[in-house]
Amino acid sequence: MADDGGLFGPLFGRGGVDTGSGAWLRAMLDTEAALARALERAGLAPAGAGAAVTRAAATAALDPDALGKRAVQAGNPVPALVRELSGLVPPEAAVAVHQGATSQDIIDTAAMLLARRALAVITADLAAAAGAAAALATAHRDTLMSGRTLLQQAVPVTFGLVAAGWLTGLGEARQALAKVAAARLAVQFGGAAGTLAPLGTRGPEVVRLLAAELGLAVPVVPWHTSRLRVIEVAAACAGAAAALGKPARDVTLLAQTEVAEVAEGDPGGGDGGGGGRRGGSSAMPHKRNPVGAVAVLGCTRQVPGLLATLAAAAEQEHQRAAGAWHAEWEPFAAVLRLTGSAAAWGAELLAGLEVDPARMRANLDSSHGLPMAERVAGLLAPAMGRVAAHDLIAEAAADAAGRGIQLSDALLGRPGMRDRLSQAGVTASQVGEALDPAGFLGAAREFTDAALAAHAASTSH
Amino acid sequence: MADDGGLFGPLFGRGGVDTGSGAWLRAMLDTEAALARALERAGLAPAGAGAAVTRAAATAALDPDALGKRAVQAGNPVPALVRELSGLVPPEAAVAVHQGATSQDIIDTAAMLLARRALAVITADLAAAAGAAAALATAHRDTLMSGRTLLQQAVPVTFGLVAAGWLTGLGEARQALAKVAAARLAVQFGGAAGTLAPLGTRGPEVVRLLAAELGLAVPVVPWHTSRLRVIEVAAACAGAAAALGKPARDVTLLAQTEVAEVAEGDPGGGDGGGGGRRGGSSAMPHKRNPVGAVAVLGCTRQVPGLLATLAAAAEQEHQRAAGAWHAEWEPFAAVLRLTGSAAAWGAELLAGLEVDPARMRANLDSSHGLPMAERVAGLLAPAMGRVAAHDLIAEAAADAAGRGIQLSDALLGRPGMRDRLSQAGVTASQVGEALDPAGFLGAAREFTDAALAAHAASTSH
Amino acid sequence: MADDGGLFGPLFGRGGVDTGSGAWLRAMLDTEAALARALERAGLAPAGAGAAVTRAAATAALDPDALGKRAVQAGNPVPALVRELSGLVPPEAAVAVHQGATSQDIIDTAAMLLARRALAVITADLAAAAGAAAALATAHRDTLMSGRTLLQQAVPVTFGLVAAGWLTGLGEARQALAKVAAARLAVQFGGAAGTLAPLGTRGPEVVRLLAAELGLAVPVVPWHTSRLRVIEVAAACAGAAAALGKPARDVTLLAQTEVAEVAEGDPGGGDGGGGGRRGGSSAMPHKRNPVGAVAVLGCTRQVPGLLATLAAAAEQEHQRAAGAWHAEWEPFAAVLRLTGSAAAWGAELLAGLEVDPARMRANLDSSHGLPMAERVAGLLAPAMGRVAAHDLIAEAAADAAGRGIQLSDALLGRPGMRDRLSQAGVTASQVGEALDPAGFLGAAREFTDAALAAHAASTSH
Amino acid sequence: MADDGGLFGPLFGRGGVDTGSGAWLRAMLDTEAALARALERAGLAPAGAGAAVTRAAATAALDPDALGKRAVQAGNPVPALVRELSGLVPPEAAVAVHQGATSQDIIDTAAMLLARRALAVITADLAAAAGAAAALATAHRDTLMSGRTLLQQAVPVTFGLVAAGWLTGLGEARQALAKVAAARLAVQFGGAAGTLAPLGTRGPEVVRLLAAELGLAVPVVPWHTSRLRVIEVAAACAGAAAALGKPARDVTLLAQTEVAEVAEGDPGGGDGGGGGRRGGSSAMPHKRNPVGAVAVLGCTRQVPGLLATLAAAAEQEHQRAAGAWHAEWEPFAAVLRLTGSAAAWGAELLAGLEVDPARMRANLDSSHGLPMAERVAGLLAPAMGRVAAHDLIAEAAADAAGRGIQLSDALLGRPGMRDRLSQAGVTASQVGEALDPAGFLGAAREFTDAALAAHAASTSH
Repeated sequence: MADDGGLFGPLFGRGGVDTGSGAWLRAMLDTEAALARALERAGLAPAGAGAAVTRAAATAALDPDALGKRAVQAGNPVPALVRELSGLVPPEAAVAVHQGATSQDIIDTAAMLLARRALAVITADLAAAAGAAAALATAHRDTLMSGRTLLQQAVPVTFGLVAAGWLTGLGEARQALAKVAAARLAVQFGGAAGTLAPLGTRGPEVVRLLAAELGLAVPVVPWHTSRLRVIEVAAACAGAAAALGKPARDVTLLAQTEVAEVAEGDPGGGDGGGGGRRGGSSAMPHKRNPVGAVAVLGCTRQVPGLLATLAAAAEQEHQRAAGAWHAEWEPFAAVLRLTGSAAAWGAELLAGLEVDPARMRANLDSSHGLPMAERVAGLLAPAMGRVAAHDLIAEAAADAAGRGIQLSDALLGRPGMRDRLSQAGVTASQVGEALDPAGFLGAAREFTDAALAAHAASTSH
Repeated sequence: MADDGGLFGPLFGRGGVDTGSGAWLRAMLDTEAALARALERAGLAPAGAGAAVTRAAATAALDPDALGKRAVQAGNPVPALVRELSGLVPPEAAVAVHQGATSQDIIDTAAMLLARRALAVITADLAAAAGAAAALATAHRDTLMSGRTLLQQAVPVTFGLVAAGWLTGLGEARQALAKVAAARLAVQFGGAAGTLAPLGTRGPEVVRLLAAELGLAVPVVPWHTSRLRVIEVAAACAGAAAALGKPARDVTLLAQTEVAEVAEGDPGGGDGGGGGRRGGSSAMPHKRNPVGAVAVLGCTRQVPGLLATLAAAAEQEHQRAAGAWHAEWEPFAAVLRLTGSAAAWGAELLAGLEVDPARMRANLDSSHGLPMAERVAGLLAPAMGRVAAHDLIAEAAADAAGRGIQLSDALLGRPGMRDRLSQAGVTASQVGEALDPAGFLGAAREFTDAALAAHAASTSH
Repeated sequence: MADDGGLFGPLFGRGGVDTGSGAWLRAMLDTEAALARALERAGLAPAGAGAAVTRAAATAALDPDALGKRAVQAGNPVPALVRELSGLVPPEAAVAVHQGATSQDIIDTAAMLLARRALAVITADLAAAAGAAAALATAHRDTLMSGRTLLQQAVPVTFGLVAAGWLTGLGEARQALAKVAAARLAVQFGGAAGTLAPLGTRGPEVVRLLAAELGLAVPVVPWHTSRLRVIEVAAACAGAAAALGKPARDVTLLAQTEVAEVAEGDPGGGDGGGGGRRGGSSAMPHKRNPVGAVAVLGCTRQVPGLLATLAAAAEQEHQRAAGAWHAEWEPFAAVLRLTGSAAAWGAELLAGLEVDPARMRANLDSSHGLPMAERVAGLLAPAMGRVAAHDLIAEAAADAAGRGIQLSDALLGRPGMRDRLSQAGVTASQVGEALDPAGFLGAAREFTDAALAAHAASTSH
Repeated sequence: MADDGGLFGPLFGRGGVDTGSGAWLRAMLDTEAALARALERAGLAPAGAGAAVTRAAATAALDPDALGKRAVQAGNPVPALVRELSGLVPPEAAVAVHQGATSQDIIDTAAMLLARRALAVITADLAAAAGAAAALATAHRDTLMSGRTLLQQAVPVTFGLVAAGWLTGLGEARQALAKVAAARLAVQFGGAAGTLAPLGTRGPEVVRLLAAELGLAVPVVPWHTSRLRVIEVAAACAGAAAALGKPARDVTLLAQTEVAEVAEGDPGGGDGGGGGRRGGSSAMPHKRNPVGAVAVLGCTRQVPGLLATLAAAAEQEHQRAAGAWHAEWEPFAAVLRLTGSAAAWGAELLAGLEVDPARMRANLDSSHGLPMAERVAGLLAPAMGRVAAHDLIAEAAADAAGRGIQLSDALLGRPGMRDRLSQAGVTASQVGEALDPAGFLGAAREFTDAALAAHAASTSH
């Protein structure tokens, strides 16, 4: 069965990553078949044996449940699988089945194959998410909104810059994943204790041929108890999860009823039983729950604990660990699945995001110009000195906040205050200009452009 | 499907704990049925509605995969389930379906039901494991073996005391689990925002009736975003996992080829494809891999990371969390499953453990009496002073270690040394007595007896 | 030095918990002194030896840095500490120093003493936080506000109920901590390998006397490699951290500029360099950053990972672990410190919280009555049938949302709609009543009262 | 104070990594000074201002404890630090202090500086450890020992290959760390909300100049709430910790009394209070505790949980996180410190490791040739068929194990068995050859050489 089944599979196993029992079994059979071909190429199995085993592996209708039941004898399912596979090949090819190998070789190499397929899917979904973020950054390069620090309104930003930040995170995470996929997914083939003793001096050659058959890297030495690769795959996924969790968290916050600057789109096509549109509620027809963002977070928040399990499991004894290795299988698959699901949800979330620039502007204006107070102070400082300027503005800001009026009105609306400004040589239009958020964006557009340029460069090759 | 299927299910989902989609679905339906009965008892649904919904829930042939697919609309499978269930009850009973409830009520309460069933299984398996440890402690109350600290031989202990330590850990973990099961598994029923508004003032009564129907505790207030219970269940499981991991780790170490003091028994009955007996190897017929202990560790080592995920997820927003709640479902189920699997493996491991007292004695003797050196020094100190006694014994110990002889021979076999001992008024038989490990066991038997007594007390009520 | 020093100590080590080197050293010396007294009481050390060692331990001016440097020889600081302490007692009392003990006995027992002192502080701060939450629940029992699920406005609640939820979480976490403090902090005394061999048959008696001297529990057997107690302390702290993180998270959300329903008070007394009031900003004078809530979260979010470390470290080998034990010391102290700091911040946060009921009401009203839509549908259903009622209300809700008017106006302001209502026998005043949030609070007050009653009961004994 | 002080500092803060308050403060001051110089270079501060601030920062005698106390007002120590620093510069340079910056810019950039210094130390210590492993691999290229899987003796390996595995892990971890250090340590400079608004359009230029001053990378956009870099540093450290934990774990196992194949050297020079040599015990003079390996594990086992904390903290809100950012500071520093300590301990451990080839051979021979059984079966298979050969050997192996004799004797010592061999055309000398472990090493030497070659290549550039 695939891992997107069951009650929760479509939430936590969305998208194309498959780490279910069927996918594991397929990867193990692919490994055995590739080994048979490698052995034949090395002259260690008769001509035709590789093809025979490959055929048997491709057509074997093995039952994961049955293999799993037999796995308790050896502590892993490979011996039972080898026995089944051996029974499916002609006698003259049997020597090519599992020759020189140990169970760990098959499981570790299969895990790398699972990871390769998963990472390809995840990088594609990250690219889709990045593309959607780039579109948002482009479209909203000049869309003003309030910046927010510690969840308080701060100086203005643009939604383009926000999206550019998401884009950069997604792009960097994708590159990191791609590097791991390209460089660190290696075949594991060492035999009973890492020497490939039954193959005599031919071991390294078979390692290379096996790697070539599978398109995996050749490790310097077998890595049966050197688990850096496992950590690297999981850490790159955790990075991707972080890059996906960031926009998801922002969306949940920006979609709050009281903020309402973005909303999730409705991908349509479904009726979950609770109403016509995704995130809708029959009991509360106004609600548009950010289901996609919530689903992303439901996935990404599971990843750090699994990463810790894998990092802790990397301390492995001698030539095969007693427990630490076994403790990797489930969390390794789960990290791939959850990151993949987050990427699938995230790509859809960003592609469908609805942005409300008017509301962004309204929220920005609701702070009465106070976030720009410092800027007016800067205007006054040359004439009045920094401290006096600061004090005057603080007084006006307190007045504005207290009376619920704009800072500009507090500054210009009272004769006393207006006089002090003109004494400092500052005109009303200067004040107005200083309080225009559109004029206090600093490098927002430059940073946005830089992110878009980096994105374009990363997708052009 | 149950969660002991697939390639890895029998390893990581052994025993009676079921947290698969079928079990979740059953628990959700049980919750809806109990709610219908509670509503009827409260007069909020017509007579017979409770029974009608219970009947529909009991016989509903719902497909978890189909419900899961529809779960993406709302972010959880309950709305789809409610729609299906509503379609299965007579119109007059429909009002009793899900009245006043929100999806979280159903999922959280179902999780508590899953936990209750799981904890009952786990405590039973822990009791079985404890019983086996008690039998070992009783049988080996006087079996001498080497104590080992930092993996170095230290002063002697008994295997009975080792087993008593396992027993005490298992017993304490079981009690902690039982306490959580008895006191902290509570119904969650709060409706859309925790007020049960549609039920008017009748909410608290329905909570109590629902709790009574399900045999769960009544919370002071709905706990939708107060997740202490989830942490407590998971932490108690982590305690149980620790108590199971301890003997499993010791068994892997004591079963090492070079130590060989214990071996796993063969439960028989299987052929995993790799040889006749569990842990056997067709390629290396001498091997008896500690498969059971390895499987315990393969389970227990996954638990701490999942516990961290659940503890981190406890920070939940307002009246329903946007992601943190969803991130609980999989790890909560996994903690129950893995702890249950470890308990099942652990009970079998301890029940079948083969102990080799002769080898324990031989390993103890192989240290040449050196761990008892301090004791001889104590003999000499009154006459020679502590420092001189220590120095003399250190000299003899170095001699014994260097020549590979017993410390007693180093002390008594050379005239010069022997003379210094007799000058201190210490006889050869005193030395021999001091070096007899059987006489240097301190409270080993008393502690063993105390552990057995505590175990007997805990099982008698 | 205490652990509230340095650049970050006052943030992450606030309050009375002390787990710095000085506190560790003091706890170790207290343990050695208590052991000397216990030995004297058992007749294993001469009269006066206990007092002599206690005096030396109390007045010893040992340098933690110097002891730490010497700790690298043995892998822990106890041997150096014992040597120093021995040099400070009169010769006739020297036999009472560390007799029968091993380094782990001293460190583990000292850790329990640290925990006892820390848990007392934490429970007191949790009680203060709970008291403040209770005061909020009482004061705002009738303060209406919007409930929020998935960060979207939902049906109304009261702020009293919100505070009651905080209160219940804090109270349950405090009780759990108190239980661990009362029952699970036990002396560890087992000697080199857990048998107390040098004490012959007197070991268990000395364990009991030592426990009595220190006010700690007597374990069934030494727990040197049975680490459930460590997990239980840490898990109870994680529960407390979760109970503190919940209100802190809510405060950050409710204090958002766009929500503005609560604000942190200014405890006064300080000028951190950035402005006069806590959370103030000289650059943005309007800002009131929720510093207290942020500090709570800065502490609590560190706890789950540390808990995982401790749970993983519980798998300890034989009679003393090679690394796992050592890996406990820092995270155990950090969990106590961070939980204590969160509790200190949390108590202050809740005591000073400023609540704006008018803003709560305004936010509630801003949803145009839509969250109560279901309630009006309920009014219509008997006459129109459930589906038709739902459809009619959905139509009006869409109208209200689209035109930015109240749902009541959408229902009553247009003739066509009004007619359909009166056909169903529903009057305008019935509609108005149904849309009054004050009438849709369900059990909000009952739950609040239940929480207050439970709190009162827990503080009365 | 440095972080290697106190009771535990020398154990968990060994080596050159410094993440104490003094180091943080220094890094913050370095950042402020570099910013002043960058501003001057950009023409945003008067000539000489950069040098003036640099001078003030270099000579400022600020008290971390005092700054820490004031940090509670703003939630971080930077505002107080800026106020102090401003007071130390001449008025005309004051404009260059902190211009455009926010507290997070200073703390994040300081964290990158801390990381850079730490990673340089760690990579150097990893290189030293790798060098020592390479020396062991070279020296023991032909040293036979038993391979061990699941802690059971398996087919033979060489100690050279074991050391080559350590070497490869250390080398790969070092390269990964070096890549992160070279590419991912970037300046953070975004001002209040990431736009550098006060700098107008000059922000990006100042970012570049600041990065140049500090030797850090220029990020595409400010990364205040995009925390991939933090995860990458921590994950690379976790990889290094795993690479260090592997040999440490193996050393503890190989140093077991019953195995005794390696021992830690005594670096001399110390008396920790417990005896003359490191790892010695005055009570048990024979003991040589593997203190170095234990210390490595005491450090490395703390890292995964901290990594999880940092990965979870990466979900940061808007333009500055409310808590998640703060939760990074301590674990980020701890990951650097603990990895650094593990590297320092590990380099010393490997450099001083004492290897006992004779004991390795003796342990290998103690398995009576049984691990090579399969090889003899391979000899017989062509004549007898695979199954019959396997059965015959299994019979002989059972006989050898049962009587405690060598497999060769079981095969050749009984007429019946000997006859069956000669019927298969297998001679005694062929049997003897097949059972010679030195002839069953497969690619052990080739893999060792490959690891040494990769090491040489990595150190030559």
